[in-house]
Amino acid sequence: MPSLPPGYSIRRTQPRDFENVVDTLRILTTVGDISREQFEDIVTYWNSTTINFHGKQIHAYHPRVILDGSGRVIATGTVFLERKIIHEGGLVGHVEDIAVAKDQQGKQLGLILIQHLTALAHEHGCYKVILDCDEKNVGFYEKCGYRRAGVEMDHRL
Amino acid sequence: MPSLPPGYSIRRTQPRDFENVVDTLRILTTVGDISREQFEDIVTYWNSTTINFHGKQIHAYHPRVILDGSGRVIATGTVFLERKIIHEGGLVGHVEDIAVAKDQQGKQLGLILIQHLTALAHEHGCYKVILDCDEKNVGFYEKCGYRRAGVEMDHRL
Ligand SMILES: CC(=O)N[C@@H]1[C@@H](O)[C@H](O)[C@@H](COP(=O)(O)O)O[C@@H]1O
Ligand SMILES: CC(=O)N[C@@H]1[C@@H](O)[C@H](O)[C@@H](COP(=O)(O)O)O[C@@H]1O
Repeated sequence: MPSLPPGYSIRRTQPRDFENVVDTLRILTTVGDISREQFEDIVTYWNSTTINFHGKQIHAYHPRVILDGSGRVIATGTVFLERKIIHEGGLVGHVEDIAVAKDQQGKQLGLILIQHLTALAHEHGCYKVILDCDEKNVGFYEKCGYRRAGVEMDHRL
Repeated sequence: MPSLPPGYSIRRTQPRDFENVVDTLRILTTVGDISREQFEDIVTYWNSTTINFHGKQIHAYHPRVILDGSGRVIATGTVFLERKIIHEGGLVGHVEDIAVAKDQQGKQLGLILIQHLTALAHEHGCYKVILDCDEKNVGFYEKCGYRRAGVEMDHRL
């Protein structure tokens, strides 16, 4: 298993990560206008939403950032846990919004982040972890231990 | 838009729907052993989890059942809302765990349920609604207004 370059670290996203997280996400898709206050509200919501699973209170959202040696956020991603009836009242982990800064490619940060989020979801008891991606990223996610499972469909107004 | 047969109705899932919901879900996949108490705990969790979105408290989970004229649950499905940073702090609706009783096929209940959940998610402000399905169900979801968007991948231990 690859590890982070010396000096790099991974931790839960905090309200103060506003600028770097938003900038990093612009690589993935449309972010649009989002204020510091809105960002802080969402991170606070993520921190406060819990699930009671087999007698333990666990976070529903697990947002993570990777920091470089200088403390700058250079990658971000989340896994959130969905409570179901099927699979004996099971949990499913949804990996979402993975982005790595352009100048940080080639360091396997994407792979490390996915493995981290996936392990986290399984440790919390998820019977499976899923994600949706473009056809062109299937090879990358296969390297992370994922397999093709189905078709993602969407509905937009 | 198709409508429910006379006498049929649709409403939020309630803790007392235990037996019929669990039986209906066995059509979709593995349900395994789940007690009435566990079921009630999950429905209570779904009812208590809210999101503050643009100043309104909304449910994160919207589980629904369709009842026939005699009040029996004959279809079930959920949409839950995910809070994101992207798309101006947007919401995404995830349609999950759709099942229709075998003896109720041909009444367009699946279509009605999907349209209901999809409209609900958009009314709450979701910029898109997504779902994952088998290749063999793509045609059905296209009839519901969905389009192919990507590849679903999974990770199981
Ligand atoms: C594994 C991963 O990171 N998948 C992301 C998904 O989490 C994100 O929400 C979406 C945004 O696309 P959109 O802007 O078209 O909604 O892109 C990708 O599918
Ligand atoms: C639109 C729809 O209903 N999709 C369902 C999904 O919600 C459910 O969680 C999964 C269960 O499969 P599993 O038992 O292999 O996890 O099957 C389908 O993909």
